[in-house]
Amino acid sequence: MNRDVNYNVYTDLALEAHSLAIERTGGEVQGVKVNEEQLENAKITRIEVMNEQGAQAIGKPVGIYITIESEGLKGQNRVVHDQLSEIFAKQLASLIDFDRIRPHPNLEPTIFVVGLGNWNATPDALGPQVLNNLMVTRHLYQEAPPELRKGLRPVCALSPGVLGLTGVQTAEIIRGVAQMIKPDLIIAIDALAAQNSHRLANTIQLSNTGIAPGSGIGKNRMAINPETMNLPVIAIGVPTVVHAITIVNDAMEQILKGDIFSPTEKERLRHIEQKDKKRMIGNILGPYMGSLIVSPKGVDELILDVGRIIAGGINVAVHPDITPDNLSLYL
Amino acid sequence: MNRDVNYNVYTDLALEAHSLAIERTGGEVQGVKVNEEQLENAKITRIEVMNEQGAQAIGKPVGIYITIESEGLKGQNRVVHDQLSEIFAKQLASLIDFDRIRPHPNLEPTIFVVGLGNWNATPDALGPQVLNNLMVTRHLYQEAPPELRKGLRPVCALSPGVLGLTGVQTAEIIRGVAQMIKPDLIIAIDALAAQNSHRLANTIQLSNTGIAPGSGIGKNRMAINPETMNLPVIAIGVPTVVHAITIVNDAMEQILKGDIFSPTEKERLRHIEQKDKKRMIGNILGPYMGSLIVSPKGVDELILDVGRIIAGGINVAVHPDITPDNLSLYL
Amino acid sequence: MNRDVNYNVYTDLALEAHSLAIERTGGEVQGVKVNEEQLENAKITRIEVMNEQGAQAIGKPVGIYITIESEGLKGQNRVVHDQLSEIFAKQLASLIDFDRIRPHPNLEPTIFVVGLGNWNATPDALGPQVLNNLMVTRHLYQEAPPELRKGLRPVCALSPGVLGLTGVQTAEIIRGVAQMIKPDLIIAIDALAAQNSHRLANTIQLSNTGIAPGSGIGKNRMAINPETMNLPVIAIGVPTVVHAITIVNDAMEQILKGDIFSPTEKERLRHIEQKDKKRMIGNILGPYMGSLIVSPKGVDELILDVGRIIAGGINVAVHPDITPDNLSLYL
Amino acid sequence: MNRDVNYNVYTDLALEAHSLAIERTGGEVQGVKVNEEQLENAKITRIEVMNEQGAQAIGKPVGIYITIESEGLKGQNRVVHDQLSEIFAKQLASLIDFDRIRPHPNLEPTIFVVGLGNWNATPDALGPQVLNNLMVTRHLYQEAPPELRKGLRPVCALSPGVLGLTGVQTAEIIRGVAQMIKPDLIIAIDALAAQNSHRLANTIQLSNTGIAPGSGIGKNRMAINPETMNLPVIAIGVPTVVHAITIVNDAMEQILKGDIFSPTEKERLRHIEQKDKKRMIGNILGPYMGSLIVSPKGVDELILDVGRIIAGGINVAVHPDITPDNLSLYL
Repeated sequence: MNRDVNYNVYTDLALEAHSLAIERTGGEVQGVKVNEEQLENAKITRIEVMNEQGAQAIGKPVGIYITIESEGLKGQNRVVHDQLSEIFAKQLASLIDFDRIRPHPNLEPTIFVVGLGNWNATPDALGPQVLNNLMVTRHLYQEAPPELRKGLRPVCALSPGVLGLTGVQTAEIIRGVAQMIKPDLIIAIDALAAQNSHRLANTIQLSNTGIAPGSGIGKNRMAINPETMNLPVIAIGVPTVVHAITIVNDAMEQILKGDIFSPTEKERLRHIEQKDKKRMIGNILGPYMGSLIVSPKGVDELILDVGRIIAGGINVAVHPDITPDNLSLYL
Repeated sequence: MNRDVNYNVYTDLALEAHSLAIERTGGEVQGVKVNEEQLENAKITRIEVMNEQGAQAIGKPVGIYITIESEGLKGQNRVVHDQLSEIFAKQLASLIDFDRIRPHPNLEPTIFVVGLGNWNATPDALGPQVLNNLMVTRHLYQEAPPELRKGLRPVCALSPGVLGLTGVQTAEIIRGVAQMIKPDLIIAIDALAAQNSHRLANTIQLSNTGIAPGSGIGKNRMAINPETMNLPVIAIGVPTVVHAITIVNDAMEQILKGDIFSPTEKERLRHIEQKDKKRMIGNILGPYMGSLIVSPKGVDELILDVGRIIAGGINVAVHPDITPDNLSLYL
Repeated sequence: MNRDVNYNVYTDLALEAHSLAIERTGGEVQGVKVNEEQLENAKITRIEVMNEQGAQAIGKPVGIYITIESEGLKGQNRVVHDQLSEIFAKQLASLIDFDRIRPHPNLEPTIFVVGLGNWNATPDALGPQVLNNLMVTRHLYQEAPPELRKGLRPVCALSPGVLGLTGVQTAEIIRGVAQMIKPDLIIAIDALAAQNSHRLANTIQLSNTGIAPGSGIGKNRMAINPETMNLPVIAIGVPTVVHAITIVNDAMEQILKGDIFSPTEKERLRHIEQKDKKRMIGNILGPYMGSLIVSPKGVDELILDVGRIIAGGINVAVHPDITPDNLSLYL
Repeated sequence: MNRDVNYNVYTDLALEAHSLAIERTGGEVQGVKVNEEQLENAKITRIEVMNEQGAQAIGKPVGIYITIESEGLKGQNRVVHDQLSEIFAKQLASLIDFDRIRPHPNLEPTIFVVGLGNWNATPDALGPQVLNNLMVTRHLYQEAPPELRKGLRPVCALSPGVLGLTGVQTAEIIRGVAQMIKPDLIIAIDALAAQNSHRLANTIQLSNTGIAPGSGIGKNRMAINPETMNLPVIAIGVPTVVHAITIVNDAMEQILKGDIFSPTEKERLRHIEQKDKKRMIGNILGPYMGSLIVSPKGVDELILDVGRIIAGGINVAVHPDITPDNLSLYL
């Protein structure tokens, strides 16, 4: 039996974690503030985990989590993609206080964009794919005369790979490089695991709490967050997979909690021991269950499209002179 | 609701279809002969569907289905891979009667290898990947003097793509090309959908009944088989995905048929209408359920490895002078 | 010594062939009409080879050759790329008479787009890359009710690969598939070899004379042209390589014909036998000279960009309802 | 005019630099010791630059340069590839003194393998490709009990990308990561530029002097060598390109120095000013000359093959228990 298997429901999304908490408590979640906004092509949800109580309730650190939901991510309409890039840019900008991270009143902050994930595993390749479309300027910036620098900020980027490819904890690589280049902000992009397959490829999450690579697979890896990096860290993620275990678990819950059983029966069913459920999950998914993932058939193309949307949004958010209209001039 | 969704259990594997038939009938399946052989690294099962009765019982056409099962496909041990290539070559050769397909007593038969599937969708890219490693000789053969031809047979190859990429039914493309090059045998390779996730990446199926592209997604496409091609057709497949619907269905069945209910309860549960089940599956998987697939995380690498194993096996099986030992001399 | 080596200057571009002819004859080329137009971002040259005399003079078949030259192909400005797509679409449309190729007054013609070249060799992968961005509609068209078909034409597509990958002449594959789907027009895209490295990635050539795969490497392959296909054929090409032999030859010519020698000396140098030149080329390039190509370092990215430009242009040119402004709605 | 253009003959290969020095001096090169060995499938040349005099003579730092030349790199014979892997492993091992780099008598040294180059530019992708096939063990090693560690050494790996992709000097990234993981040896792999196209894909160079990324393009980048890293650094390289400028220059030299001119004429020709030559090179290659490279058509496949050969050789050289015979058991 795979020791890394996490039989409990897992989600990287604060939005889902919050819904699950509401389900459990049956009402409001203390210490968490939620704000929703419906735009033409997207719905924005801003979840603020205000204190330790809220953090424990939803299992996510104190901080801000912004979710952009849109079916437009799935389609291939470039006009809609450009709109989503713009919406994303605005939300990203709301999480960055450029004046505060500026190293000196006359100097622009250096931004270090980290593309997490494994380029050899399609649904995990979002981070590297974003970097394929990102405007990298730090090396040009250093050589440019001040009058040409105006309107651009120094951006550098790295796709470090994953532990299995490098033999080094990803957070260690980032920290080592950060010690050399002394950035003022880290933006880390990663593919996420959702709890609900509805979320696949229709959600972008931004947060100012950082990220723990591999957390979705029950691994205890060093996080990339403001504490470990000693720097502001913004995490950007898109759910591209649901663990097969999560889906099987859901299916069982649907039956057990559905209206096909009387309240008395349900009461009894609640006592099916976790052990039984584990055994049944094992029957269905087999010994490699921990490595089985659910993803949409078109995930290869999706990663390309969402990678472009996020890269475009970062470009617009971090460079004052780049707007959605003139973005293409800079690429 | 997606009209293409197939709520019934679907499998491309005769082995699974046979097991399901045994489960249904509770005993032997008429018209089907099964023979098993255990080798050191692999188990070979030969299923012969002998007549229409057998065909209906397991839902697969009359013909021979050979299954090679081995956990070694999953590993990355090249020695084991080479052994599996050799085992596969032997089974493939058992399905080809070179003397019978020879166009003339003095001429070697031309073999047309078709790599089905979508190179832009990793788990569906097995066919194109096999062709990356196949020895293609037809053009050299035609130019070579007879004394140099000895020991090699003319092999040609095509990866036609899928309907969504070409706008043309794959079988039409194959037939059109076959009319030009007049091959004596078609070997078609495709990624398959299994019913049980245990099968993912541990099974190779060979059959002499051909293949129907897209059958796993409930599409009614023109088959590539001896009837439509007017030629012997050997199909080779490896299960790389399970439909998410299949897994959810399995999970529900595990609960409903498991030993947590009394026989009376089970009797009642049997009457849960199909409609209810569909609704619950919809709740879990959402509107895009038909496009959700379950695959192992390492499927990108797996496709590369299995593609090499199958290509090596075809090379050995079709060219008299190539043996597992000297295969590498020819690549 | 490689027997496939072509020591003479070779070019796929009518524009270059015409310049070379002018150089040789010292003046106008009979049987060839040339028309130039300067646009903001591009220069259009329309060369009409009017008769056999013109065809022999420039070594290209009778027909129309349109060249679009723009440094904008090289850059990464998406706005300029969109303009080039539009310019290209207009030139492509000028070569197609939809009313004439219509199979029936009430039926739209079927267009078969062929992406020639080898997807495993970057500078040769233009054709397959165009197909990655092409709108393929034939299969949807057949299923769509007539009122929804309006404004779109049935387009199908194939990337057949190259002889070394398939063992079949590419023209045979195309012809076989064409016999099944009965298109009314073939559009074939291929990467080209230029004579002058200035042309790399700044030129698109369109012609109504078809294409001969492998002609740049001195191979005598079956052409894909109106005669062999019994159909109108439009060829689209972009020079992505110059043969190393061509460049070495140029370098020698620069010295020999440059102003560092007196007329008498030049006269003598003209008698350097071809054999000497061959020997020197052999000294420089070695035995594999025929397989050495010159390409820009950024050719990987260039193929992606130009592939998108051409695909967008085809989409606009063949579907009446698609315009540059709404193109993205259809992708 | 491109300021980065290097009009002088450039080569990354000590073997070529040595030949050029011999040509210039007309005899032996002081301060350089050369030793050749002919094996069945390969020729080994060991060049030792013994002092500053030798370093200046050939333009390479003091140290050892080993060259393995074999036409077998080009072919696709896996048996020959395995032999080359073994030969390479032996030469690599000759450059490493494991006992000396051991951090403690009871501890195995940690080896940090760096795959330099740009994965988006095929001929520059050798470094990243080697890492695709490398056995990475550091993370397993740390978790393994001592008895299981025996026979393996901790290996970690990084493909940092290039300055244009990251905005950070590659040496800075390596140094930052090295400060975190404290390796005892760095092995850096990079694609090289040769001076002579005969060398393309038939040569592997190893040296203990490190590497300067981008040196072939006239850029002054921070080196990855024992001085900058404060660690032993072994560099491994394979020439995959020749700069187009180099080839054009060669072609001119062939003419000017060939036997078609009398000694008096040659004397005069020697005075063709560098300026004239530059102008002529500009005529032939155009303004983007600095970015034009010559490579074999099959470079995509070559990078895959050579990447496997080098990775296999590193695996054998650094892990005591891995031999060429059992290598595949570990992959």
